[in-house]
Amino acid sequence: MNLTILLDKRPVGKPQLSDFKFIDEPIPEPGKGEILLKTSYVSVDPYLRGRMIDAKSYAQPFELQKAISSGVIAEVIASNHEGYLKGDFVSGLMAWSEYQKSDGSVLQKVNPSLAPLSAYLGILGMTGLTAYLGLTEIGKPQKGETLVVSGAAGAVGSVVGQIGKILGCRVIGIAGSYEKVEMLKSKFGFDEGINYKTTNNMKSAIEEKCPDGVDLYFDNVGGEISDGVLANINKFARIMVCGSISVYNNTSVPMGPRVESLLVKNSALMQGFIVGNYAPKFPTAIGQLSAWLKEGKLTYSETIVEGFDQIPQAFIDLFEGKNTGKMIVKI
Amino acid sequence: MNLTILLDKRPVGKPQLSDFKFIDEPIPEPGKGEILLKTSYVSVDPYLRGRMIDAKSYAQPFELQKAISSGVIAEVIASNHEGYLKGDFVSGLMAWSEYQKSDGSVLQKVNPSLAPLSAYLGILGMTGLTAYLGLTEIGKPQKGETLVVSGAAGAVGSVVGQIGKILGCRVIGIAGSYEKVEMLKSKFGFDEGINYKTTNNMKSAIEEKCPDGVDLYFDNVGGEISDGVLANINKFARIMVCGSISVYNNTSVPMGPRVESLLVKNSALMQGFIVGNYAPKFPTAIGQLSAWLKEGKLTYSETIVEGFDQIPQAFIDLFEGKNTGKMIVKI
Repeated sequence: MNLTILLDKRPVGKPQLSDFKFIDEPIPEPGKGEILLKTSYVSVDPYLRGRMIDAKSYAQPFELQKAISSGVIAEVIASNHEGYLKGDFVSGLMAWSEYQKSDGSVLQKVNPSLAPLSAYLGILGMTGLTAYLGLTEIGKPQKGETLVVSGAAGAVGSVVGQIGKILGCRVIGIAGSYEKVEMLKSKFGFDEGINYKTTNNMKSAIEEKCPDGVDLYFDNVGGEISDGVLANINKFARIMVCGSISVYNNTSVPMGPRVESLLVKNSALMQGFIVGNYAPKFPTAIGQLSAWLKEGKLTYSETIVEGFDQIPQAFIDLFEGKNTGKMIVKI
Repeated sequence: MNLTILLDKRPVGKPQLSDFKFIDEPIPEPGKGEILLKTSYVSVDPYLRGRMIDAKSYAQPFELQKAISSGVIAEVIASNHEGYLKGDFVSGLMAWSEYQKSDGSVLQKVNPSLAPLSAYLGILGMTGLTAYLGLTEIGKPQKGETLVVSGAAGAVGSVVGQIGKILGCRVIGIAGSYEKVEMLKSKFGFDEGINYKTTNNMKSAIEEKCPDGVDLYFDNVGGEISDGVLANINKFARIMVCGSISVYNNTSVPMGPRVESLLVKNSALMQGFIVGNYAPKFPTAIGQLSAWLKEGKLTYSETIVEGFDQIPQAFIDLFEGKNTGKMIVKI
């Protein structure tokens, strides 16, 4: 049979297992021009939390009692489509189902001999593109500048820091445990790390680690961590706002220090973005990321959980920081 | 004799007359290569409040017991400098003194037959340049977009709205009285106005006046007015942060709703700036502003107060919104 995961209730605060529902249906039959796909890997991402509420955002909200979707790698197990052969692997936004059919129109083939399949959900997928395009298109890093990354041990953050180093920046990462901070330095080549869980005063901690101030801030978390970073920005600082996982589960608009005066005083830029804004630049970006990966200049971490039934829990665990790097469920 | 105004105490909260001190000294003698200037007009501006505190900002703080300076138009009354003749008028950042000498190096000659002298402190000076360069360089307005301006009846705001109209935007201004709102529409050609003093719910007020949402927000005030505007921004909105007069007199960092989520959801940009960032573009910008002024496409308001001794009070009155358009003291 064929399990699918539906959004049963819109989460209030932190998502719960009871917000999700499993249904079991027959495996669909591919029609003319269609292919049948068997899910291999499912990406769970913080941004999906935003799609679970019924509010205007950059993506359509998920509908209740409908399948949730995210980045998926799947294998073609039957094909009535001349562009796909049995045994091909594809990536795309797909339902959280064990099997599904497709007309192939919004899928991309991936090559398992060039990189592990899961990499196409991470460093060579939305994760790597978000890191590369956010940093280069908005941040435009200059050699010698200081780059701070929050959520630095996360999927996007760890890539941002490495690209910052490749481009000649001094890179400081903020993460949530001693082990993560050590890994930032030993595995990803960050210059310094800050464990926010043992830091009382983020403003002073940043001041200490960034004696020349902060030129670039790639923000994955928002909230009080950002307040401490923003208090140290330099003139013409660029703040790339990629996400704010620290407040995704808030049920009311969180309050914090107003930023207008800081922005005016420093002629600073704060730009929110989603990677889709830069779609025309994806091929070039993937080319650059693949090259760096091949040259050994980029590395990545994955937390791979096994089992289709583990998808909701893996998603919930994101908000506890249980992942290191990209969180992926292997089916 | 020759009166000069010193900063006697750093203001705490709203500036007081007792923060300023008048001293009387002899009129200086211009040396070799120098000119003697008699002050004609003095510009008082909200941003000077920031220079009165002893903190890192985009301009050096004023020193205690030293003369305050701002934009001034002065007449050359004696010249030992081959570039200046008696009777020339100049503009520049100068001390709040009745008379002062200068080596002429950072002054610009102004032509009183092309526009009234006071215009060189306003529409053809920093005010007009701030409006034009902030709106065009950061906002990049497109025909048919909706532009909201806060502090719309102020010196910068009234010019921003007019330029928005020239460039084909729908323009909504926020100001602090019924009369100002009427003037925005009748004199400056804004499409709609909102009196924030009689508006309980700025978010709904903006929603009503901007049925297609807000594409561009030129922010002169910050604070709760901005919260209401930001709640209505569209995808790819551009927020030009020019000033935050509503919080300049706060003694601690004001709190407000965090903006990160809004910026990410809308891929929106928030950019602080000061006009000096765009100095290389001043000549072109002044050319454009002069042309529009000549064609009758731009008009401006001034509140002109008379008397050197009125400078501190005129400055304090800015924070009560007693001015309409550029606040200038005529000596």
